[in-house]
Amino acid sequence: MIPENISNEVLNELQNIVGTDYLFVDANVLSDYGHDETEDLSFAPQVVVKPKSTSEVSAIVTLANQHQIPVTPIGGRTGLSGGALSVYGGIALSTERLNQIIAIDAKNLQVTTQPGVITEVLRDAVAAQGLFYPVDPSSQGSCFIGGNVAENSGGARAVKYGVTKDYVLNLEVVLPTGEIIWTGANTLKNATGYNLTQLLVGSEGTLGIVTQIVLKLLPLPTANVLLLVPFYKAEQACEAVSAIFRAGITPSALEFMERDAITWTANYLGEVNVPIGDNVQAHLLIEVDGNYPDILFQEAEKIMHVLEAYEIDEVLFADTDEQKNALWKLRRAVSEAVKANSIYKEEDAVVPRYELPNLLTAVKKAGEKYGFQSVCYGHAGDGNLHINIIKGNMSDEAWQNEVPKGITEIFEATVALKGTLSGEHGIGWVQKRYMPIAFNALHLQLMKQIKNIFDPNNILNPGKIFPDEI
Amino acid sequence: MIPENISNEVLNELQNIVGTDYLFVDANVLSDYGHDETEDLSFAPQVVVKPKSTSEVSAIVTLANQHQIPVTPIGGRTGLSGGALSVYGGIALSTERLNQIIAIDAKNLQVTTQPGVITEVLRDAVAAQGLFYPVDPSSQGSCFIGGNVAENSGGARAVKYGVTKDYVLNLEVVLPTGEIIWTGANTLKNATGYNLTQLLVGSEGTLGIVTQIVLKLLPLPTANVLLLVPFYKAEQACEAVSAIFRAGITPSALEFMERDAITWTANYLGEVNVPIGDNVQAHLLIEVDGNYPDILFQEAEKIMHVLEAYEIDEVLFADTDEQKNALWKLRRAVSEAVKANSIYKEEDAVVPRYELPNLLTAVKKAGEKYGFQSVCYGHAGDGNLHINIIKGNMSDEAWQNEVPKGITEIFEATVALKGTLSGEHGIGWVQKRYMPIAFNALHLQLMKQIKNIFDPNNILNPGKIFPDEI
Repeated sequence: MIPENISNEVLNELQNIVGTDYLFVDANVLSDYGHDETEDLSFAPQVVVKPKSTSEVSAIVTLANQHQIPVTPIGGRTGLSGGALSVYGGIALSTERLNQIIAIDAKNLQVTTQPGVITEVLRDAVAAQGLFYPVDPSSQGSCFIGGNVAENSGGARAVKYGVTKDYVLNLEVVLPTGEIIWTGANTLKNATGYNLTQLLVGSEGTLGIVTQIVLKLLPLPTANVLLLVPFYKAEQACEAVSAIFRAGITPSALEFMERDAITWTANYLGEVNVPIGDNVQAHLLIEVDGNYPDILFQEAEKIMHVLEAYEIDEVLFADTDEQKNALWKLRRAVSEAVKANSIYKEEDAVVPRYELPNLLTAVKKAGEKYGFQSVCYGHAGDGNLHINIIKGNMSDEAWQNEVPKGITEIFEATVALKGTLSGEHGIGWVQKRYMPIAFNALHLQLMKQIKNIFDPNNILNPGKIFPDEI
Repeated sequence: MIPENISNEVLNELQNIVGTDYLFVDANVLSDYGHDETEDLSFAPQVVVKPKSTSEVSAIVTLANQHQIPVTPIGGRTGLSGGALSVYGGIALSTERLNQIIAIDAKNLQVTTQPGVITEVLRDAVAAQGLFYPVDPSSQGSCFIGGNVAENSGGARAVKYGVTKDYVLNLEVVLPTGEIIWTGANTLKNATGYNLTQLLVGSEGTLGIVTQIVLKLLPLPTANVLLLVPFYKAEQACEAVSAIFRAGITPSALEFMERDAITWTANYLGEVNVPIGDNVQAHLLIEVDGNYPDILFQEAEKIMHVLEAYEIDEVLFADTDEQKNALWKLRRAVSEAVKANSIYKEEDAVVPRYELPNLLTAVKKAGEKYGFQSVCYGHAGDGNLHINIIKGNMSDEAWQNEVPKGITEIFEATVALKGTLSGEHGIGWVQKRYMPIAFNALHLQLMKQIKNIFDPNNILNPGKIFPDEI
């Protein structure tokens, strides 16, 4: 699919749909909407439109389908797999004006929202009514809930509360033909036909554009306890993760950070004072939450008891909200800090949690073999490791040719450990070439045929998920 | 699709695959495998096979696909929507010899099992290792875990812990072409391509035959408190359900039973001594669970405080395991008791939980209009009402012609309340004609096209889910 110029006639029709103020062809806007947070990649669309309603989205997609013009849905542009890049040009459809929380239904513990609401705004709005939307990607301050649905985003609390898919009850979707359906019902249970809701979640904007989202909510927990545990051996930090669960505790967060991740980030932020012993290799950030503070302290003691089996430095208990916020800010800024430090590639491998030490070993081994440094951190409770491969002083040639070999070996090890390529970032543009490591040709063909049913003209977010050769 | 005789050649090939002892053509076996627990329906297959391995399943399906013979996968035959009925004859593929728990992985809190394991056997096996598989259909003593996956079964604990889909991480599936894939990975998070795992869950054996299942487990809670609350007004029982959640409590079970449900069942079982006041219209059975008994009593007190707003009779606290088991036995036997009482039809409507009183009203209104009695019970915490329509003294003519009109109106009301046709029983054979109430033609076509991708010859469980006219 090669981008062709969009005719003036089509541009006029688009302008009729969204209005003069919400169609953009200026180079700087196109450039802005041509990248997300994925490496240093940039693919500019030919036009940016900002519809205000489901019917405007439908009209845009109908037009694009008639003229076979690519449409790339764009949310908060915080993605890490290139899902929002207009790799074949065409129309960039920004959801930023679909930004209304339509209804917080406290009686049913549900919220109905448009996709362009910032995740943190949504979480705060429901929290104000004593309700809890637990999914908290590190980018929650700027990512959109619609992007979370597209990528099946996770976050620190997934270990206890699950990921986006576990909260999506129903979706209003504009299909690539312009038609509009609701995928399911606003119910906690549903055994009525094929689960198109869950098929849409995580489909990275390739099967439809989500225009309304009904999410399940929980009662808001009122208390938590947070511990930062320094380990002298990174592998032991990984092992401790599984031991905590086997002790019958389900933490609300269980985050792993290699030494470099925490020191680089502390330097980057410049304001966090976390003492790090010389021989500390890794940290676990552990949170338990609930409604009964005394019980949480008991659980924290149980965790401490589990940790006695490992070689650890002094544990930091965050007592105040200020301390807790500082630690979370540190954790959430790791990705930015790594980015500020060097050109990098980020992988998002996920394995059964007990296999995390083996995954970490495989990453380091690949790094030694192909000559790259990596900084690893992520959601250890879910077995989800963010592997930041650092360009540093590597030659461009090695960066282009050697690193992909190392990534291939990391993913081969991941799949051998019964894991898979992406836990929460999606495949998008940058991981698609590795898909045959996880799926055989038959399996990829099944997925591709599903894509064809929904999108016979392949206009919606083309070039994503599927390797080029299928 | 009209059943034709299966040739002797094919029967011989089937026998070569499964062995002489595991192919059956005797009339009594065919009759046995021709029904499940759905009303009084019976559709016998032409042959029953009982494969022992994934490769045997694959060989059977490959053969059937070559000869375009219908294959109906059969589990514990406890289904309530006719999913396991061989409505077009053909091969009944019983999973009863695929009955091994392959591995309980305590380190990762996962279990890998074949589909023919009885759900309770699986729950007990993991409980023996301190692990918890929460999904507990009322038929757990005889249903198979594979059937639970096929129907996306729920149960009493779904209100806190979710349904089958929330525990399925990965599936080994024999596709209708005989090919074998694993749908996903053994990970808690997965953002890698389309979610075929969730597409398969609840697809009622129409997209593939599940031959291995990887389930997420939780730490086993060690304590619970159980209350039986009699209400003078059924609608108030429904209202109290939502109020309990709004008070910040998430019970582990919240079951609703109309007066008739409990009295019929007590009479049917003959051994349960539950005093029921004259003016009591309905009961709620409420459980909270966890690891800290003191906290559970606090939660029970909070619930009692919520209930003060309603007109209730004396609450029964079940203190001992014996009392608790008696109450659960009572609840689980309602379906059998109703069945023993009269010919009946069971609907499985589900709505947002706050709408339950409105659904109950719609059911009773339809009964008045079309002249039928109904006994309602079910999972009030999920808004999932089992509506048993009683034939009693109705004429056959009214039963055939009037009741479906009433069911149509009940489902129209359900969908208007943002609910849907089935919460946990599936659509199968008996609900398929009502599918156009929940989905428009476009939506049904999307589902049907997905079916066609997986099963181009429509051999796998044909005649289910989709209305005949599409």
